[in-house]
Amino acid sequence: MHKHFFTPGPSGLYYTVEQHLKQALKTGIGSISHRSQQFRNIYKEADNNLRSLLQLPGNYTILFTNSASEVWDLSTESLVNEKSLHFVNGAFSEKFYNVVKDSGKTALLSESEWGYFPEIDFNLVKQADHIGVTHNETSTGVSTPLEVIYKIREANPEAIISVDAVSSLPYLDIDYAKIDALYVSVQKCFGLPAGLGLWLVNDRALKRAEEVNKGNKGMKSYHNLLALAKYAADFQTVSTPNVLNIYLLSKVAGDMLNRGIQMIRSEIKYKAAVFYKMIDSHDKLKPFVTDKSLRSDTVIVLNSGEHTKGIIDYLATKNMIIGTGYGKQKADHVRVANFPTHSKEQFEMLTDLVEKW
Amino acid sequence: MHKHFFTPGPSGLYYTVEQHLKQALKTGIGSISHRSQQFRNIYKEADNNLRSLLQLPGNYTILFTNSASEVWDLSTESLVNEKSLHFVNGAFSEKFYNVVKDSGKTALLSESEWGYFPEIDFNLVKQADHIGVTHNETSTGVSTPLEVIYKIREANPEAIISVDAVSSLPYLDIDYAKIDALYVSVQKCFGLPAGLGLWLVNDRALKRAEEVNKGNKGMKSYHNLLALAKYAADFQTVSTPNVLNIYLLSKVAGDMLNRGIQMIRSEIKYKAAVFYKMIDSHDKLKPFVTDKSLRSDTVIVLNSGEHTKGIIDYLATKNMIIGTGYGKQKADHVRVANFPTHSKEQFEMLTDLVEKW
Repeated sequence: MHKHFFTPGPSGLYYTVEQHLKQALKTGIGSISHRSQQFRNIYKEADNNLRSLLQLPGNYTILFTNSASEVWDLSTESLVNEKSLHFVNGAFSEKFYNVVKDSGKTALLSESEWGYFPEIDFNLVKQADHIGVTHNETSTGVSTPLEVIYKIREANPEAIISVDAVSSLPYLDIDYAKIDALYVSVQKCFGLPAGLGLWLVNDRALKRAEEVNKGNKGMKSYHNLLALAKYAADFQTVSTPNVLNIYLLSKVAGDMLNRGIQMIRSEIKYKAAVFYKMIDSHDKLKPFVTDKSLRSDTVIVLNSGEHTKGIIDYLATKNMIIGTGYGKQKADHVRVANFPTHSKEQFEMLTDLVEKW
Repeated sequence: MHKHFFTPGPSGLYYTVEQHLKQALKTGIGSISHRSQQFRNIYKEADNNLRSLLQLPGNYTILFTNSASEVWDLSTESLVNEKSLHFVNGAFSEKFYNVVKDSGKTALLSESEWGYFPEIDFNLVKQADHIGVTHNETSTGVSTPLEVIYKIREANPEAIISVDAVSSLPYLDIDYAKIDALYVSVQKCFGLPAGLGLWLVNDRALKRAEEVNKGNKGMKSYHNLLALAKYAADFQTVSTPNVLNIYLLSKVAGDMLNRGIQMIRSEIKYKAAVFYKMIDSHDKLKPFVTDKSLRSDTVIVLNSGEHTKGIIDYLATKNMIIGTGYGKQKADHVRVANFPTHSKEQFEMLTDLVEKW
C-alpha cells in the first residue's frame, strides 16, 4: 500500500508527478541539452505557468537555483549592501542570519522565542538596507502575518525585502509590490522531488545587485544573481540545471493552474481549520503555536512531548507518515504538512485518526 | 522510436535508470526525509558502491554537491590558500581559472590553444599552493595524460591538486594517492539526470580547508567544504539534497559494479578506437585533437566546419542525437559522447552511419 507523506518536506509528491515523470522518461527529457531550444521551451513554460499561478508582476524575474539554502549565500552576496536585519524565530530564519553574520557584512538581529514573532523595533528596521523575513517557519509552524511584512516595508521603503516562502508558496498570496525577493524549495508545497529552488526577484533587487557589484565586494559566486538574471533573460541557466525537475515544475504549475489557485488555497484553509479545531481539544497533543494569528496553515506543529513516538508510530501503521520536530524539538514536537497534494479526504482521515488516538 | 543521446552531457541515461526511477516512485523515495535513517542508508549504499567502483582509498571522503560548477566556488574558498595555478585549454578549465581570479586570491595561468595541453612551466607549478587540472576538457575533447598530472605532483608535492573529471569518471583510472580532490557531474558518464555533483576529497584537502579557515578568509558559504565533510561523516547532507538522484546513483554505481569496471573501461576504449579509426580517414569530418596522445575516449570532438548542420541533422533522422561544438566552436565542431550507457552495438551503428555519410 502507498504511504501518504504528511512530512513538511520532502513531502508527498503532487499527485500528477508520477505520470509526468513517466512521460519525461519516454520523451528523453532527462537527456536533452540545457542549451537546446527544447530546454528553453520548458523554461518558458515553467515561467509562464508560474507567473499566471502566482499572478507575478512583470517586473519580477524567475530564477532557478540549486536549493533555497543557496539563496542565503547569494542574497548575502548580492542584496546586502552593508546591514541586513533578520527576524529570527526558528531554525531557518536563524540560518539566514548566521550566513550574513559569517560573511563579514553586518547582521542585525530581531529575535523571539520559537513559536512567536519578534516585536518589531522600527529603529532597527530603519538601519537596515536589506531585511530578511521568513513567511513560514518550517521548524516551528509560525506564519508571519502579511500585515507585519507590509508594515516593515512602510517603515523602510528603501530596504530590499527578502521573503522566505520555502514552505508556503504557492499557498501564500502576497502583494509582490511590497517585497523585492522571494525564495522557495520545490519539495514542499509544489510536491516535487528535492533538488531545485526558485528565486523571484524584482527590478529593485537587480538594481541593488548592480550597486553592490560596483563596490569593492564584487559578485564572486559562479551562480551570482547578475549571472543568473543574465541567462534567465534568454530562458537559460548559468550551468547545467536539474532539467528534469524544471520540466516537472512546468507541468505541475500547469496542473495547479487548471485546478485553480483559489481552489487550492481554500482547500488548504479548510483542511487546516478542521485539523486545528480537532487538535485544540485533544487531550495528549496541543498546537505548539498558541497565538492563533501566527499559526501556519501549511506546516502544523504540535507539542507532543512524551507522546511523540507514539503518535508517529501509530500513524505509520496506517501508512500515514508525519514529521518529527525540528532540531532541538525533535523529541517533543511533531509536524504535519498541509500541502496542495494532500486531498481533503486524506486530511479528514488523518484528523479522525489523530482525534481518536 | 527512442532517441539515442550521444550528447556530451546531459547524455543518454544509463540503461537501468528507468527501472530504478519507477521503483523509486513505488517506494516513495521522492518523499522521504533527508534526516531519516532510510536516507542515511541510501547515502551509505552510494558511498560503498562508489568506493568499490573507483577503488577509492580510505582517506577520501565522498561529498554530494549541487553541481560540478559549485565545486569551483567551494574549492576557491576552501582549498586555495593564496595562489592557484590553472592549466587552461578549453572553456571549462578557463571557468575555474576565472572563478579564482574573481575571488581576490591569486590565479596563475598556464594556457594553450584549444585542442592542446599547455607546456608545463615548473617554476610556475612550484609557486602554487593549489593546482587545478582538467582531466577531460568537455569543450574540446582533450584528455590530459595521467603522467602529466603525476609530474606536476612530483614537482610540487605540497600543493593541493584538484582534478576536473566531469566527463571522464568512472572511466578514468587514476592513482588517487597522487591527487587530493576530484569532482564530477552525474549527467555525463554516470548516465543520470542532471542536478547532482560528486566531490571526492582526501584528508590533505580537509586539512588545507582547516588551515584556510583559520586565516582571516573564513568559510563563508553555507555549503562550505568543512560543513559538507562534517555532515558526510554521518552520511548526512547540510541541507535537503537531490535525494532521488543520490538514490539513482547508488543503484547505477551498483549496476556498474556488477557489470565490472574493467569491462566498462575496455568497452569504452574499444568504441573510441573504432570511431577514431573511421574518422581519421573521413573525407568531410576530422578529429579536432590532432595529437593522438591527447584524444579523449569519452568525449570525441570533430572538426565539422560547413558540414556541422548536415551531420547533426542526418543522424537525427536516424534518432541519433550528437552534440554541437562548445561556445565559440558551436558552428564548427560536433561532439560525440562515448559513455558507459552507449552500447557497442549502438556505437558501431553510429560509426557506420558517419562513415557512409
